[in-house]
Amino acid sequence: MAIRVAVDALGGDHAPVEVVAGAVAAASESITPVLFGPAALDAEGLELVACADAIEMHEKPAEAVRAKPDSSLVRAVKAVGDGDADAVISAGNTGAMLAASLLHVRRLPGVLRPGIAIVIPGRQGPTVLIDAGANADGRPEHLLQFAHMGVVFAQEMLDVREPSVRLLSIGEEAEKGNQLTLDAHALLREADLRFEGNSEGRALLEGDADVVVCDGFTGNVALKTLEGTIRTVLHALRSEIHGSAMGKLGGLLIRPAARGLRARLDPDTYGGGYLLGLRGLVVIAHGSSSQVAIANATRMAARGVEHRLVERLAEQLPRASTQP
Amino acid sequence: MAIRVAVDALGGDHAPVEVVAGAVAAASESITPVLFGPAALDAEGLELVACADAIEMHEKPAEAVRAKPDSSLVRAVKAVGDGDADAVISAGNTGAMLAASLLHVRRLPGVLRPGIAIVIPGRQGPTVLIDAGANADGRPEHLLQFAHMGVVFAQEMLDVREPSVRLLSIGEEAEKGNQLTLDAHALLREADLRFEGNSEGRALLEGDADVVVCDGFTGNVALKTLEGTIRTVLHALRSEIHGSAMGKLGGLLIRPAARGLRARLDPDTYGGGYLLGLRGLVVIAHGSSSQVAIANATRMAARGVEHRLVERLAEQLPRASTQP
Repeated sequence: MAIRVAVDALGGDHAPVEVVAGAVAAASESITPVLFGPAALDAEGLELVACADAIEMHEKPAEAVRAKPDSSLVRAVKAVGDGDADAVISAGNTGAMLAASLLHVRRLPGVLRPGIAIVIPGRQGPTVLIDAGANADGRPEHLLQFAHMGVVFAQEMLDVREPSVRLLSIGEEAEKGNQLTLDAHALLREADLRFEGNSEGRALLEGDADVVVCDGFTGNVALKTLEGTIRTVLHALRSEIHGSAMGKLGGLLIRPAARGLRARLDPDTYGGGYLLGLRGLVVIAHGSSSQVAIANATRMAARGVEHRLVERLAEQLPRASTQP
Repeated sequence: MAIRVAVDALGGDHAPVEVVAGAVAAASESITPVLFGPAALDAEGLELVACADAIEMHEKPAEAVRAKPDSSLVRAVKAVGDGDADAVISAGNTGAMLAASLLHVRRLPGVLRPGIAIVIPGRQGPTVLIDAGANADGRPEHLLQFAHMGVVFAQEMLDVREPSVRLLSIGEEAEKGNQLTLDAHALLREADLRFEGNSEGRALLEGDADVVVCDGFTGNVALKTLEGTIRTVLHALRSEIHGSAMGKLGGLLIRPAARGLRARLDPDTYGGGYLLGLRGLVVIAHGSSSQVAIANATRMAARGVEHRLVERLAEQLPRASTQP
């Protein structure tokens, strides 16, 4: 039976046009996207669940979720909680996705805080960054649990047998960091994990750890710095190249190579993040998602269902938290 | 009279060879580098102050500074405190530079914490990032003072009349952030500053603010992520290009453009950071500094002296801190 993915048609900067197009592109024998949006929406042949309301990007998450139970975002999330869909994706308000998920999908037993896991396409291989922005403030025990969730994720989704874990900090030495990372370091060292110490931001795109753990504020700053820097460097290169005739010719010749690189590093390719620690599969796509990004996020959600990610987390986390 | 810059010959991963070469390269009619290092060091004609000891990168800053008063790092910093040099640079242990500076150069009146200011070569213009790593933990009032110091820096060193200030956070909206940034946002909004709200990491290399303020942990993570990403992207591009004969030819043709870009974005070019809030001029260079980086850091230090940066901070900060 095809996996049903609830898609918030009104989430993101380019909704609904790009969202619908992305959902249509992701539809296949094994994936059935279900759109949540206004009754008048042209669903292009996909199933449409009519919702009367929308949550905007700037709205206060908890208030918006409470005030708008019939918004496309809340209804799409609730569909997972109610068993009407196997997974949900939205490129809308991240905080509202978190609030709606806590309310309608609920946490797995023992989970302190859900965390966003993003797969960064590192040079030496993929790196799972967790938490990439679900919780602005974190405590050391949250970071420890993010590490355990990241490990299960890397095992199930990236097929890494015994994932290595590093803590994002400001120096590789154990004594470098702020109070949160110093305390988290001590917990991680004692845990039943393949903990390899601290990692600096410069290592993120290198991919020298399978899982990099941090609080959501730091993770989000690092992720956005990474994305912005990739974009600016590629853009600057294009400008430099176009500055001379020889450069222009060279630019034409390297275009396939540059395209390959851009495709690999483009947030639209790896874009979505999994909100881990819930009783259902929730994917949060980039606010600026194009149809390609939405299609990829929809496929990501379906892949999470296929790999039984939620069930694996439910099995593994209680065991991990009984460790010292 | 030439500006005397004390150079810690034993600081950094490539000391002393690259440090001495960099100091020699920076020597000019207006700059007199003075090396601090072992008596046996070949100073290549520069003045050498013989020191018996060295502080290593991994040593605990405060302890090392206390235990090794005759180290090249401590002696070079003390030369500024004693008036024997106009400025000091080191590519050594950042924490030890901070500790030695607090001890021997001392804070300007009213300064809560010195902060590291780094000039990032943004696309639209330079951005001053402060604090880039002096203090792992910060309080809102520290961030407010970093903003004031960054503004004076941008005025004096970058010639910006009324610098714009942004707060590094995880969303442009005022209500996005962790507790520290929420509190700092409120202080910044009330202050006598051209505060333009929050900025995300993606904007750092875009250069859309003159000053970006944050705590030292966040700033250091962002800076290292930025540097690492630039390096990895350029490296990946080279690999992609070399994957095909057409790409290789194209690569040759764009080489001048790519070199220009690399030179502009290379940490060796903008590398050093100014430690602001002290009674003397202190520049901390990258641990991995090459001779080019050391030469640039030495010139940066001299430029700070020429622009009377310390005196301007001493004049402007008390006025700023009497603001609401």
